[in-house]
Amino acid sequence: MSKLILVRHGQSEWNLANRFTGWWDVDLTEKGVEEARAAGVLMKEHGIRPTRAFTSYQTRAIKTLNLALEELDMLWLPVVKDWHLNERHYGGLTGLDKQQTREKHGDEQVHIWRRSFDTPPPDMEPGHEYDPGADPRYEGIDVPTTESLKLTIERVLPYYREAILPPLEAGETVLVSAHGNSLRALVKHLSGISDDDITGLEIPTGEPIIYDFDAKMVPGERYYLKDA
Amino acid sequence: MSKLILVRHGQSEWNLANRFTGWWDVDLTEKGVEEARAAGVLMKEHGIRPTRAFTSYQTRAIKTLNLALEELDMLWLPVVKDWHLNERHYGGLTGLDKQQTREKHGDEQVHIWRRSFDTPPPDMEPGHEYDPGADPRYEGIDVPTTESLKLTIERVLPYYREAILPPLEAGETVLVSAHGNSLRALVKHLSGISDDDITGLEIPTGEPIIYDFDAKMVPGERYYLKDA
Repeated sequence: MSKLILVRHGQSEWNLANRFTGWWDVDLTEKGVEEARAAGVLMKEHGIRPTRAFTSYQTRAIKTLNLALEELDMLWLPVVKDWHLNERHYGGLTGLDKQQTREKHGDEQVHIWRRSFDTPPPDMEPGHEYDPGADPRYEGIDVPTTESLKLTIERVLPYYREAILPPLEAGETVLVSAHGNSLRALVKHLSGISDDDITGLEIPTGEPIIYDFDAKMVPGERYYLKDA
Repeated sequence: MSKLILVRHGQSEWNLANRFTGWWDVDLTEKGVEEARAAGVLMKEHGIRPTRAFTSYQTRAIKTLNLALEELDMLWLPVVKDWHLNERHYGGLTGLDKQQTREKHGDEQVHIWRRSFDTPPPDMEPGHEYDPGADPRYEGIDVPTTESLKLTIERVLPYYREAILPPLEAGETVLVSAHGNSLRALVKHLSGISDDDITGLEIPTGEPIIYDFDAKMVPGERYYLKDA
């Protein structure tokens, strides 16, 4: 039976500092490293052995995957890295902490950006301190200047259908290590969550979420592996 | 100009214990971790940016690669893992330390196995304590029961021609993180070393070795990056 395991990266330096991160490439904290290892240990204890893994182009998700695979003794697993699984691009908010953002833009506006489904934050201006676009990893890629959750979904779902679904349809156990909003895109699709509700759904760091598919490739209810 | 970078994994637990390792999957020591990171730092200092990486199915080479890529801030790089780059399979010697081997088989015989080009050690018997064949990573692969250096070369070189050479021919900078004997296979081929001489050529752990290719894809003299 096909199985999809979603893991949000462990705590990052900017999760801890409460800053908008988006496509900026921050590292895991020590706690994040421990969360990633614990995700691997939990999978091992439950006898879950992925046959393939996907992750983003961002260090925090790749390291989370590598640490989990190391605990599974499966560093040899084929891994595909793709920018379509990156975090939502927070545009001009990137690098601001929540307090700075409220001071700069006002409480109400910040609430809209954080919780609106389809209102993107302001564009990232050229020359922004935290512009990921200059990094060679994004050469040839049309890096967004900002993304709403809706826009994030519009790049994640086609990638899911094209790259992740085929091995699931072939009966594989697929592990995806990604980000709060790229995983929201998948959970919204697979669990049929409304536009209004998905923005409030929190994906905890380092907690494997499981979907088991039936023979017709209908996903069952999602559950946390720790509760299985 | 195409560039090939070869890195032998950092010190492993069984390098340290002086035991024949082969396909048994041992981890890096703390020193090995430091060697791997230092290889990444050295590449970064020299402005070397691989465009693609290859490694074996073995944890010590994969971790060496991941640690070096982390120092390069390039964990996002596409990585292909393939068993053809594995260490030489030491057959029935796997797990023995050098002293045990001499006691069991005699000094002269051990010298022949270690230094002969084409005499493989005795086969690994079924049920051997350190048989890698049962591991799921080798499912569907005809795991050898022993290998001479010659047999190792006979699996490494076709893989080099099929998988590693094409991106080099396309002008890429290719990083290979592998093992003493799978790297000997490549060095023998690229530097035109005789059967007699190759068995005595030591590949140091964690030291990037470089081949620059000319426009006709003729490799130049190999050199250590630290001497560049």
